[in-house]
Amino acid sequence: MTSNITNVTVLGTGVLGSQIAFQSAYAGFTVTAYDISDEILEHAKARFAGLAKVYQQQVDGATEARTDAALSRLSVSSDLAAAVADADLVIEAVPEAVAIKRDTYQKLSASAPAKTIFATNSSTLLPSDIVSATDRPDRFLALHFANEIWLHNTAEVMGTEQTSPEVFDRVVAYAKEMGMVPVPLHKEKSGYVLNSLLVPLLDAALELVVFGYSEPADVDNVWRIGTGAPMGPFQILDVVGLNTPYNIMAHGDERKQQIAAWLKEHYLDQGKLGRASGEGFYVYDKTA
Amino acid sequence: MTSNITNVTVLGTGVLGSQIAFQSAYAGFTVTAYDISDEILEHAKARFAGLAKVYQQQVDGATEARTDAALSRLSVSSDLAAAVADADLVIEAVPEAVAIKRDTYQKLSASAPAKTIFATNSSTLLPSDIVSATDRPDRFLALHFANEIWLHNTAEVMGTEQTSPEVFDRVVAYAKEMGMVPVPLHKEKSGYVLNSLLVPLLDAALELVVFGYSEPADVDNVWRIGTGAPMGPFQILDVVGLNTPYNIMAHGDERKQQIAAWLKEHYLDQGKLGRASGEGFYVYDKTA
Repeated sequence: MTSNITNVTVLGTGVLGSQIAFQSAYAGFTVTAYDISDEILEHAKARFAGLAKVYQQQVDGATEARTDAALSRLSVSSDLAAAVADADLVIEAVPEAVAIKRDTYQKLSASAPAKTIFATNSSTLLPSDIVSATDRPDRFLALHFANEIWLHNTAEVMGTEQTSPEVFDRVVAYAKEMGMVPVPLHKEKSGYVLNSLLVPLLDAALELVVFGYSEPADVDNVWRIGTGAPMGPFQILDVVGLNTPYNIMAHGDERKQQIAAWLKEHYLDQGKLGRASGEGFYVYDKTA
Repeated sequence: MTSNITNVTVLGTGVLGSQIAFQSAYAGFTVTAYDISDEILEHAKARFAGLAKVYQQQVDGATEARTDAALSRLSVSSDLAAAVADADLVIEAVPEAVAIKRDTYQKLSASAPAKTIFATNSSTLLPSDIVSATDRPDRFLALHFANEIWLHNTAEVMGTEQTSPEVFDRVVAYAKEMGMVPVPLHKEKSGYVLNSLLVPLLDAALELVVFGYSEPADVDNVWRIGTGAPMGPFQILDVVGLNTPYNIMAHGDERKQQIAAWLKEHYLDQGKLGRASGEGFYVYDKTA
C-alpha cells in the first residue's frame, strides 16, 4: 500500500516541526512549512539550513546535492489558506496548548480542501481531545515523532474511534515513505508507546534515589551494564530536562509529590535543570 | 580502602555460583567452591573449564595462561567445615528457597571462624529474611551478581540494619577488587536496583500489548530506536523466560492477573517459554 500523498504542509516551525518538514522534503515530498509570521519563518529557514548540515554529517548518503534537493522541495508560508490549498496531508506541530491547537484546527478546517488528512504531533494531548475542533473526524489522527528525527526515526500513529481505517493505513504508509519506522497503535493511549515505557522506568529510578536506596550514578551503572543501554535513567532525565518530570510528578499522588518536592529542592531551585542548563544529575561541559 | 580478603568460599556451584567462583579466582583470590556432593562438584569442574574457554573468547586479555592461573587458585570441596575453615568471605549461591538458605546458614555458622563475612547472592529474598539463621548479623549482607558476570559486571551490595558499616565497606571493596562495578544500596530493597527498574519497564510493555494498544515487535522498535538500547522489553522477556513474569503477575492485583492469564493462554500453554525454548515473543533458531 502507498500513501498516495504528494504535498505535505507542516504547521509550526519549532524544533520538531522543522525536523518533520525537512525530513519529509529529504524523502522526496513537496513540503510547505507554515508559521504565523514572516519573521518566524526567517528563523525556520535558518533551522532548515542547519538541518542540511547536520544531515550531511550524521545521515548515511546525505550528500550536499541531496540536502540541496530537499531544500528545493521545501517552501515557507505565513498564509494558512495558501499553505494548505493543495495539501494531501497537514502535520500540525504548533505549541502544546489545547486552546492553540483547537484554534489552529478551526482555521485549518475552514481552509483545507476535503481531501486533506490532518495529523497532530501532540505529545501530551490525545487526538480525541482535539477532534471536535476539526470538520473531518474520519480524516484526523495523531502522527507523533521523536526529537532528532533523523536518528530516532519512529513515527507513532494513533487514531480516534472515528478515524477511517483507510486514512490510518495511508498515514502509516506515509511514515514509512518518509523514512520512519511506523508504530501503529490500535487505540488511544496517553504517552503513546515510548512514553508509556519511559515514564515508569524514570519513576522507578527516581524512587530509588529520592527514597534513599541508591545514588544516580550507581543506578545508571546498573542499567547500562545490566541491559547494554547507552544511557541510564538519570542521564535520560538530564536530556529530557528536569522540569518535565517535576511537572508530571507535582500533579500526582502523595508519593509523586514527594518526588516533585525533592526535585525542586535539590535541582530546580538551584538552577540544575538538566543537560541544557549545564548541570542536572551530572555536570556538563558547556563548551561541548 | 582494601577488602583485606584473601580466601573466598562460594557455596553452590550452579550457573551463577560457578561464575562467582571463577571470576574471583580470575581476579587473584584463593577460592574454594563448595557443593553438597562430589558428583555435583565434577559438574562444577566442567563448568569452570567451560568458563576458562569463554573468558579466552570474550574477556580482553584473558590468555590461556591467565585462565590456567585462575583454575589453579580454584579448588572444590563437599566438606563444608573444611571449605570454610580459613574463609575471609563466604558467598552463598544455593537454591532460592528460604528453608535451604536458613539450613545452610545454620550449618555455616557452626563451622566458620569468627572472622568470616557471610554474603548471600539471593535475588528474591532480602537479607533480613535470612539473618536470624546466622550467628553474626553484623557480618552478614547481600552481594548480588548478574548472570554472565564477565559481561554484566555489577555487584549490588545490600545490608540489613544490623550489618556493620565496616563489613559493608569491605565487601564493596572486594566487589571492586574482583572486577565488578559495586552498587551499594543504602537500605534494603526487594529487587535491588536492576530489578526495581526492569520490572516496571516490562510491566508497562506487557500492558501495552495485553490490553490491545500495540504489538511486541512495535514496542521493541520504539524502545530500541528511541533509547538506543540493544534490546526491547519483549526481547528481554524472552531472555528472562516467560515463566518469571507469569509467576510475578499471577500473585498480583486483578490487572496483573489478567496479564498472567494472557501469558498463560498465548505463550506458556503453547510451550512458548522464551528464547531457551526456541520461541517466545519471537522465534529463535535452535541451532544457533
